[in-house]
Amino acid sequence: MADPNVHRSSTFAPVNIAVIKYWGKRDTALNLPTNSSLSVTLSQDDLRTHTTASCSPKFTKDELVLNDEDQDISGARTQACLRELRGLRKEVEAKDGSVPKLSGMALKIVSENNFPTAAGLASSAAGFAALVRAIADLYTLPSSPAELSRIARQGSGSACRSLFGGYVAWKMGTEKDGSDSAAYEVAPASHWPDMRALILVASAEKKDVSSTVGMQATVKTSELFNHRAEHIVPARMTAMEECIKDRDFATFADLTMKDSNNFHATCLDTSPPVFYMNDTSRAAVRVCEAINTRAGKAICAYTFDAGPNAVVYYIAENEGQVAGILKSILGGKMGWNSLQGRAVQAAEMPKGMEIAAEMLERGVSRIILTAVGDGPRRSEEHLV
Amino acid sequence: MADPNVHRSSTFAPVNIAVIKYWGKRDTALNLPTNSSLSVTLSQDDLRTHTTASCSPKFTKDELVLNDEDQDISGARTQACLRELRGLRKEVEAKDGSVPKLSGMALKIVSENNFPTAAGLASSAAGFAALVRAIADLYTLPSSPAELSRIARQGSGSACRSLFGGYVAWKMGTEKDGSDSAAYEVAPASHWPDMRALILVASAEKKDVSSTVGMQATVKTSELFNHRAEHIVPARMTAMEECIKDRDFATFADLTMKDSNNFHATCLDTSPPVFYMNDTSRAAVRVCEAINTRAGKAICAYTFDAGPNAVVYYIAENEGQVAGILKSILGGKMGWNSLQGRAVQAAEMPKGMEIAAEMLERGVSRIILTAVGDGPRRSEEHLV
Repeated sequence: MADPNVHRSSTFAPVNIAVIKYWGKRDTALNLPTNSSLSVTLSQDDLRTHTTASCSPKFTKDELVLNDEDQDISGARTQACLRELRGLRKEVEAKDGSVPKLSGMALKIVSENNFPTAAGLASSAAGFAALVRAIADLYTLPSSPAELSRIARQGSGSACRSLFGGYVAWKMGTEKDGSDSAAYEVAPASHWPDMRALILVASAEKKDVSSTVGMQATVKTSELFNHRAEHIVPARMTAMEECIKDRDFATFADLTMKDSNNFHATCLDTSPPVFYMNDTSRAAVRVCEAINTRAGKAICAYTFDAGPNAVVYYIAENEGQVAGILKSILGGKMGWNSLQGRAVQAAEMPKGMEIAAEMLERGVSRIILTAVGDGPRRSEEHLV
Repeated sequence: MADPNVHRSSTFAPVNIAVIKYWGKRDTALNLPTNSSLSVTLSQDDLRTHTTASCSPKFTKDELVLNDEDQDISGARTQACLRELRGLRKEVEAKDGSVPKLSGMALKIVSENNFPTAAGLASSAAGFAALVRAIADLYTLPSSPAELSRIARQGSGSACRSLFGGYVAWKMGTEKDGSDSAAYEVAPASHWPDMRALILVASAEKKDVSSTVGMQATVKTSELFNHRAEHIVPARMTAMEECIKDRDFATFADLTMKDSNNFHATCLDTSPPVFYMNDTSRAAVRVCEAINTRAGKAICAYTFDAGPNAVVYYIAENEGQVAGILKSILGGKMGWNSLQGRAVQAAEMPKGMEIAAEMLERGVSRIILTAVGDGPRRSEEHLV
């Protein structure tokens, strides 16, 4: 039986994978970026965080449990999110004296990911998006997703993009207090619903440098970084929004691959250098190139976050030529039976790919088949 | 018995490894670079090309034999070198009617490297330097090494730096005809004789993209490249000349590592990306960092050309802390018995290096121990 003294609200929130990368902060306390970024929200059928936010006069202190483990929430970032959300709840309470005084109660937040945390996927984005969305629902806040994205940003920069579905930009903004640094929807998933993503999860290897540490080392030491942030990314943001509006996959792919490589180039130009791509990642690049060469145009696009996993985007109609060829190499790995029920047929591997294929087979531990998806979904399935 | 109708001259020429990298041509026909570069000439006791240039009225056509194999010399680059050298010989013959008319005779050039060609070392630099120097000697040209470097540059860009010993810069020049794009000596080997180099030869793997093709792809497609060529390299050239003059190893190391990473960053920023460093290279970077961290200052500097081999520079007094630690990891590999007779004692490996050490052990096939050395040496040992 649910305790009537416990108020609760639950949400699912999605993972997003950037195609124009966020790398570098101009303000580390407020998580304000040095450049705008743009991502695709992935389907929650495959990758999601499920979070229940609850509060009760009987709770004695704020708590966060992730995958059954107590988390430290004393960090400035989590505290900033809780403080902002409570402040907004106080405004609600001040306007309407009849609503319960939830802002004064301790919070218990329980969270679960449906994907392996060891996979090196950007779980903090889905995690903070779910936390902010669930508390906002619990507090019945009138805030728009854009307003909530500004709060989630303070928890984890890229989390702001997981407050929306589809194709999402994070505008860097110019204000010192970060009030204009928030996400917005470039296009909903329904605008270009046939975007697919295949994630090649590389075998576990200790991450070289955390992205939080790595990006600030790049900002401080790379002589190429400013050129990326000031000149290259702004032009690409405009071009990327345009090609998403036009559903122009070849341009989308070209920009996605270039921006991933450009971001990793600034990592390599950091002192000491930061390496996220390894020999498995390079093999994935070569296989994608071979697929595009054989097709005579870009029908797939690789991108790498701060880790060796390749995320390969493609359009549903090219599934045979992209996922099919990858299945001919990686057919023995876990993950081909997608929750979405799509079945991929192995296709013949193009010639000349043997070395890269062998390296990929050796270095990939599992695959995740997914697609563009929608934003956070409210749920009546509670974890508290 | 030597045939008195055959004129011959022989030379040894050294390999050089850049610390400020040459990458990109502004004129591909003349081998004119987009930026200046700077290298250390390595000892010919360990790495050298031995070349005999000969000519005779009995020879019917120009020939080049390298390591017992006939080479095609019809290429524009080799032809440019031969044409320039013959032109200079004609001037000598015009001034002094008594000298034999060698410029009209066919040339037979025979060349041998004393290092494994599969090692991926910049053999074309030593090769073209030796070819030009040997023919210039055969022709008794009055040309200075700088003048000859301008000719060798047309054969292979970095060859111009192998006409000198010690610390050598290649000034990019500004003239359209390349007349001011030549090498000069920054300092002779005797100025800073205790510079050592340890080459970690990575296991044979097919080269990703030839440097000739790779550098022009970078020039055409990398959005970071111009910034490197126009802003970063010019400042580093000045700083590097300065620290060589001051024998300031810590600054030399800092600049060397940064420039190697910066060059490889522009390769990664190329479309499609060009990868020369692999997981073995990254392990070498991590081991060098650990060595420097333990020493509390930079006592070794890694650099990578267009391939996975690491060249590690250090000063003789730190041999134990640099080569000794590498020997503790790579003691079972060939190459520790240097021709120079230096014996390296294995030293204790710093903690926390185990993963990188294991990866290095797996990926390195042999090592080459060498040092800064002098320029081309004339020899009476003829190969014809």
